[in-house]
Amino acid sequence: MQPDLALIHAAATRLEGHTRVTPVLRSYQLDEIAGRRVWLKAECLQWTGAFKFRGAWSTISALTEDRRKNGVLAYSSGNHGQAVALAARMHGISAVVVMPSDAPAVKLAKTQAQGAEILTYDRATQSREAIGEALAVERGLTLIKPFDDAQVIAGQGTIGLEIGDWADAAGIAAADVLVPCGGGGMTSGIALALEGRPGFSVRPVEPTGFDDVARSMAAGQRLANAATSGSICDAILTPMPGELTFPVINRLCGPALQATDAEACRAVALAFEHLAVVLEPGGAVALAAALFHRAPDDPADVICIGSGGNVDPALFAGILNDHAGDWRPLKDSNPQPAD
Amino acid sequence: MQPDLALIHAAATRLEGHTRVTPVLRSYQLDEIAGRRVWLKAECLQWTGAFKFRGAWSTISALTEDRRKNGVLAYSSGNHGQAVALAARMHGISAVVVMPSDAPAVKLAKTQAQGAEILTYDRATQSREAIGEALAVERGLTLIKPFDDAQVIAGQGTIGLEIGDWADAAGIAAADVLVPCGGGGMTSGIALALEGRPGFSVRPVEPTGFDDVARSMAAGQRLANAATSGSICDAILTPMPGELTFPVINRLCGPALQATDAEACRAVALAFEHLAVVLEPGGAVALAAALFHRAPDDPADVICIGSGGNVDPALFAGILNDHAGDWRPLKDSNPQPAD
Repeated sequence: MQPDLALIHAAATRLEGHTRVTPVLRSYQLDEIAGRRVWLKAECLQWTGAFKFRGAWSTISALTEDRRKNGVLAYSSGNHGQAVALAARMHGISAVVVMPSDAPAVKLAKTQAQGAEILTYDRATQSREAIGEALAVERGLTLIKPFDDAQVIAGQGTIGLEIGDWADAAGIAAADVLVPCGGGGMTSGIALALEGRPGFSVRPVEPTGFDDVARSMAAGQRLANAATSGSICDAILTPMPGELTFPVINRLCGPALQATDAEACRAVALAFEHLAVVLEPGGAVALAAALFHRAPDDPADVICIGSGGNVDPALFAGILNDHAGDWRPLKDSNPQPAD
Repeated sequence: MQPDLALIHAAATRLEGHTRVTPVLRSYQLDEIAGRRVWLKAECLQWTGAFKFRGAWSTISALTEDRRKNGVLAYSSGNHGQAVALAARMHGISAVVVMPSDAPAVKLAKTQAQGAEILTYDRATQSREAIGEALAVERGLTLIKPFDDAQVIAGQGTIGLEIGDWADAAGIAAADVLVPCGGGGMTSGIALALEGRPGFSVRPVEPTGFDDVARSMAAGQRLANAATSGSICDAILTPMPGELTFPVINRLCGPALQATDAEACRAVALAFEHLAVVLEPGGAVALAAALFHRAPDDPADVICIGSGGNVDPALFAGILNDHAGDWRPLKDSNPQPAD
């Protein structure tokens, strides 16, 4: 099944009343730093603290009753696992989340707290796929993929529908829409949702050094990252764009952007100080790009997805200690002031 | 002028499109800690990071054009000053904010960044009222009071209207509504807005040791706190309830509650971990009371106002280091599980 606008509208109907229409936030101070109007679509305020809940709900709610009742399975030590766990719980079914035995204790506990059964494996000696597939066969579980699935993409695409509605109400007909991009589920979904609005340019944002999507777009084919670890933006470090997501991104998206770890951390601190929301570094790369990487002919309005807020408290405290308080306008680094 | 429901509705009309309808957030983990459904009305996501922006907008927008054009004046080193500064800026008028010369640099800078002219005074030798009044006469400025003003109360009361609309949509007909309470502007406004809904009990929440509202309600007259400093909840430390606010609170509110500084800090950490929002300690006392002070016959739903999120980054980092990670359900301390 290919993702398309009809699938997104159908997902929106299933999500209604179960997912949050997340707010769009703004502050004059961030506008001044960026030299344009910066809008944050705060998906960190979604259930389980990340946009992933939309895709999980979309997929589970689309299963036949017969398949769904046996439960679902996910491989994830992060936002996807928590989202699948809670969406399953809210559907009254069980979820098994497979994660490495050396995953951080807080992630394990958070996923467990959302109601999942946790199955750990030894990364050195075991294959998570082998473990998961054996269990799936034994119990009839359905695997919920993190991004490369039409119903997951459709669920994330509902963010794009909400942006369209919001922009209509705000009278905004043209904007860059910057999306933190790992495997591309959210980016491709939002791009499909906004395809009919030529004023909106959906652009993937990746951590510097992990720009597989940018390089794939340049090459016209899926290319992998050299590494899958080594950035603080762990939530969006994926090996390469998806089979379903990449063709959509390649066809519809505007130029990709990158943000460094330091820029992502500074965006985390600025969102804390000026918007009172908690972003994890990977969830802040779009905001970082909006604040620090404006090109002279970019539109006056930029909408950033703040994709997640699940961050280790000690890490967040360290980011505040290192990066907060430096929120004066960077007048020299921006081409023009805000309206 | 006395505050009443008609004034709140009129304020809501003036606020529409200028203030945010703030989201109501919830997590299963907080429900489990509290043993009931805990809803957070996140006013920290309001413009300038606090509910105060509503009252400032309400008051400034209610001035005659002739008075307004001369500008406004506020005494505040905190949320009220920032709110008046931005509301004035958005009205295209000037604001003077008078604050002590020893106010924290970050508060001074934040107020200035919202567009205010800052006037500092020496607390030891000068009277802020004398300075402010002289300036007000000289320039024709209008003083915007922090809470004891009918239009300020009406502005804060719009939160109550939003809670009513939200509860209708959510199908909730009975709940405790817990409100962080300093001078009582927000508490009295919300109580007036919800007066016609007998299922809703609006209850002030104060820092332990600064329970002037609770003692005043017990005595039937306005009583002062013994001190005006000494709690981490600085945003809601006021000498005594207001002349306009107290009669409303005394007539309409349910029993007051208190939260300790440690409970407020733990609520700050829990809001960070489970709702991805930033609360300041004074803005978290209602959430703390909801989580840690349930009485056996309290209703199954509790709505807390998260009133502000302007907190020093180093203080917040310290709270996370001391209080985060301890988010397991406190099963023994709660009378019954969540639904």
